[in-house]
Amino acid sequence: MSTTMAVPLPDIQGAPDERKVDIDRVGVTGIRYPLWVRDREQGRQHTVATVNMYVNLPHHFRGTHMSRFLEVLNTHEEITIESASELAEQLRTRLDAEAAHLELEFPFFRRKQAPVTGAAGLMEFTCAIDASVGPAGSRDVVLRVRVPVTTLCPCSREIAERGAHNQRGVVELQVRTRSFLWFEELIDAIEESASCALYPVLKRPDEKWVTERAYDNPRFVEDLLREIAVEMRGDPRVAWYRIEVENQESIHAHNAYAVLERWK
Amino acid sequence: MSTTMAVPLPDIQGAPDERKVDIDRVGVTGIRYPLWVRDREQGRQHTVATVNMYVNLPHHFRGTHMSRFLEVLNTHEEITIESASELAEQLRTRLDAEAAHLELEFPFFRRKQAPVTGAAGLMEFTCAIDASVGPAGSRDVVLRVRVPVTTLCPCSREIAERGAHNQRGVVELQVRTRSFLWFEELIDAIEESASCALYPVLKRPDEKWVTERAYDNPRFVEDLLREIAVEMRGDPRVAWYRIEVENQESIHAHNAYAVLERWK
Amino acid sequence: MSTTMAVPLPDIQGAPDERKVDIDRVGVTGIRYPLWVRDREQGRQHTVATVNMYVNLPHHFRGTHMSRFLEVLNTHEEITIESASELAEQLRTRLDAEAAHLELEFPFFRRKQAPVTGAAGLMEFTCAIDASVGPAGSRDVVLRVRVPVTTLCPCSREIAERGAHNQRGVVELQVRTRSFLWFEELIDAIEESASCALYPVLKRPDEKWVTERAYDNPRFVEDLLREIAVEMRGDPRVAWYRIEVENQESIHAHNAYAVLERWK
Amino acid sequence: MSTTMAVPLPDIQGAPDERKVDIDRVGVTGIRYPLWVRDREQGRQHTVATVNMYVNLPHHFRGTHMSRFLEVLNTHEEITIESASELAEQLRTRLDAEAAHLELEFPFFRRKQAPVTGAAGLMEFTCAIDASVGPAGSRDVVLRVRVPVTTLCPCSREIAERGAHNQRGVVELQVRTRSFLWFEELIDAIEESASCALYPVLKRPDEKWVTERAYDNPRFVEDLLREIAVEMRGDPRVAWYRIEVENQESIHAHNAYAVLERWK
Repeated sequence: MSTTMAVPLPDIQGAPDERKVDIDRVGVTGIRYPLWVRDREQGRQHTVATVNMYVNLPHHFRGTHMSRFLEVLNTHEEITIESASELAEQLRTRLDAEAAHLELEFPFFRRKQAPVTGAAGLMEFTCAIDASVGPAGSRDVVLRVRVPVTTLCPCSREIAERGAHNQRGVVELQVRTRSFLWFEELIDAIEESASCALYPVLKRPDEKWVTERAYDNPRFVEDLLREIAVEMRGDPRVAWYRIEVENQESIHAHNAYAVLERWK
Repeated sequence: MSTTMAVPLPDIQGAPDERKVDIDRVGVTGIRYPLWVRDREQGRQHTVATVNMYVNLPHHFRGTHMSRFLEVLNTHEEITIESASELAEQLRTRLDAEAAHLELEFPFFRRKQAPVTGAAGLMEFTCAIDASVGPAGSRDVVLRVRVPVTTLCPCSREIAERGAHNQRGVVELQVRTRSFLWFEELIDAIEESASCALYPVLKRPDEKWVTERAYDNPRFVEDLLREIAVEMRGDPRVAWYRIEVENQESIHAHNAYAVLERWK
Repeated sequence: MSTTMAVPLPDIQGAPDERKVDIDRVGVTGIRYPLWVRDREQGRQHTVATVNMYVNLPHHFRGTHMSRFLEVLNTHEEITIESASELAEQLRTRLDAEAAHLELEFPFFRRKQAPVTGAAGLMEFTCAIDASVGPAGSRDVVLRVRVPVTTLCPCSREIAERGAHNQRGVVELQVRTRSFLWFEELIDAIEESASCALYPVLKRPDEKWVTERAYDNPRFVEDLLREIAVEMRGDPRVAWYRIEVENQESIHAHNAYAVLERWK
Repeated sequence: MSTTMAVPLPDIQGAPDERKVDIDRVGVTGIRYPLWVRDREQGRQHTVATVNMYVNLPHHFRGTHMSRFLEVLNTHEEITIESASELAEQLRTRLDAEAAHLELEFPFFRRKQAPVTGAAGLMEFTCAIDASVGPAGSRDVVLRVRVPVTTLCPCSREIAERGAHNQRGVVELQVRTRSFLWFEELIDAIEESASCALYPVLKRPDEKWVTERAYDNPRFVEDLLREIAVEMRGDPRVAWYRIEVENQESIHAHNAYAVLERWK
């Protein structure tokens, strides 16, 4: 360790700024951080998050103090939907800002059993919590999940004498809630709306089952979006939702895509 | 070629839908397409674009007709700021929709000379045109550029006895305009706001020059954002702007980030 | 322009090195560069390449001169299989090296017609030329193509009462040749080995055709690999091949993969 | 659960194949899996791995049984350098193959203290274990780490009157060992060879220190490669090494790159 701190180093970031430009968000992105998160089946699970953290910066300050973001993050070992807002509030206080924003994205594993043989394995979903806090205690939290599914084309099934093209589709669902919701519930809503869910392990009887189930439940990208929208519309705990579906078409090199966003 | 068209195939997409869910945007993403674009120096240049195209879909239709998007795109060999809106309008008409959206992103090359020796080479920038059309002739166009630059830390320069950490930063600038603007003008505004521009070829006298220039023009991520904001604020042709800067910090494994968005 | 060149700047790269470590390859990566390439149908087409260039560096030199790589590249506006070796040879000479290596990867477009209606569009393939030159005139060229296709699972088809899971697969084929080969021939060999080729535009009669064709030509990842291997084995112009197939399984979140490499 | 297993489903994968094409590697890629790994400081840490698993497939079998790969993986909750070979051996046995290969890549965190203030935080490194087993008990293990560092250009420092360009560089080091090595030792060897290590948290006195340290230890991409090579050459536990360095140049949009590979 050194003695260079005897004479204080100048605080360039704290200097005044004359350009009269408020900054909406300034901070650090792409931080990787190990964390515990809540899990309906096991209580909690360990994961590795990618973290972005920001504050607003009024025009009269030249810069923010980037190391403080990391110092606040480093005091946390577990993140829940509630504690994300608290972390954002700590950023707001520590950085002396009006508003603070936190984005946490992480792999989330569920144990899934194959539909016929019950062969079990772990399957990854991407989950995220985006939390913002503003002046006078205002708070905003968005939950986000990304779920891969099977989609089978209704048009192909109808017009072909045999078979139907199908593919991996990826759904991203975001919600603002009025009361508590598990990530697992959002994942279930998406998987039940698809032609078929994906599984980590499938033995032959399971492969027969998922093939036939997808064939019996054809879904356009529009259908899948709407099935999920109907679920979110009917859930009184959901105040706002945004649904995005992208099908990695097996008959084209490009994708089919649909999106909608609604306040209730 | 076959005769299977004798009996018309059913139109599943055109069937009515009972779920009462309007879709904001439905279409095709990730299309790759070769195109000519405008170029201030040479008149035009050839590029390869990544294209997304969408329409809105009222609740009473089950699906859109994806192949028509490609058919409309395939009639174009050159895209300009004006013709992007026309392409979106063709999508709107051909897909029988109220609104249509087009996103075109492409590499754009400029010949750049090294600052001292004049050694020349081509440097890539990412440019994009996002065009939307709605009912009653409403039109919206956003121009977007992504420009890599050098940023040198003012705090590091001030507190260190020798050297100063610097790094590659990436700026994304979006504008809505009142009158014509070249992509080249947006790129210039960004490069002039940075600690130093990047160059494709630098000989030793040039390397000396860019090293000293960056040292003489230190910029926090906040400074770079504000310098560009001041430029956009002062340009009467710009009606709206969004600026995003990300510095790939040479002293951290994470990035420094700032963003702002303004209507004038 | 400046007068700083009056006193020559020191050549740090040319200084001797005492560590006794030869370097296999040193150079520049991720260069983006617009080029013309050969095209069987149209003579030539314009594209945007990603370029890597390297030389070996004997232990007694401290560094290579990076700007010279760019200077050599900048003298080229068109690349063919033959001129790639010449470019590598120019690098070898200009950088005063024993061996030089060039890797050029670029999007390549073909006009494709839908199988029934003949609806036409452009489809992208990724092509690459890797060229190396060594002492005494030794030369080595590898051609590489990446082609997305449809694969339909033979097991799923056999065991299910209706339908069969299928997906986008991606094939990467590399060859060393004894005589001239078009990229188009490699692409054709891959597409004909798949359950079905992909198309940019498909109308309903075409969608019926591709659905049934894939169903009638089921292919495991192993089958597709072997079908292509049989083609390459039988082509007297091919001296060496490496085939890699990855299926983006529609029933799993992970992929199925196979690879083989053979000298004849 | 169903009774469809009463009549056995046909084993398509086990059918004979007439094409006479042995497959080097066939298996599953892109599996995501949570695991415990060894950690010198804490004993062990939890992580999320990306896993690829393959076996060879002789020409007389049509396909491999993909679900068995997952079943073998699912029996493991912790992976060490030794147990990776055991997992590969289990794959070899369970898939009835001559050879099996396992690739495991995962984020690995170390607690690091800032050099002057001692401010602590977690920093991510990417680590990997690649294990292969063949007939007659042959085994091969490669350890791999990816480490971001600071590099400062010696030429720029020498020729400029003030400052020196520097940037984030990324080193990938692979080794085959004769006896036990910690990932932490490989990471240390890389960080000590760089102009400066990266840190998760740096307060102002630390920023002064890292700026000056990088300035005092300039490294070309070639220097960094050679410094690490000298370390590996001198370590009797290392039998083979491959070192790859890529500098994300702050003065160019492209990268500087060097690689070498040696058996001792």
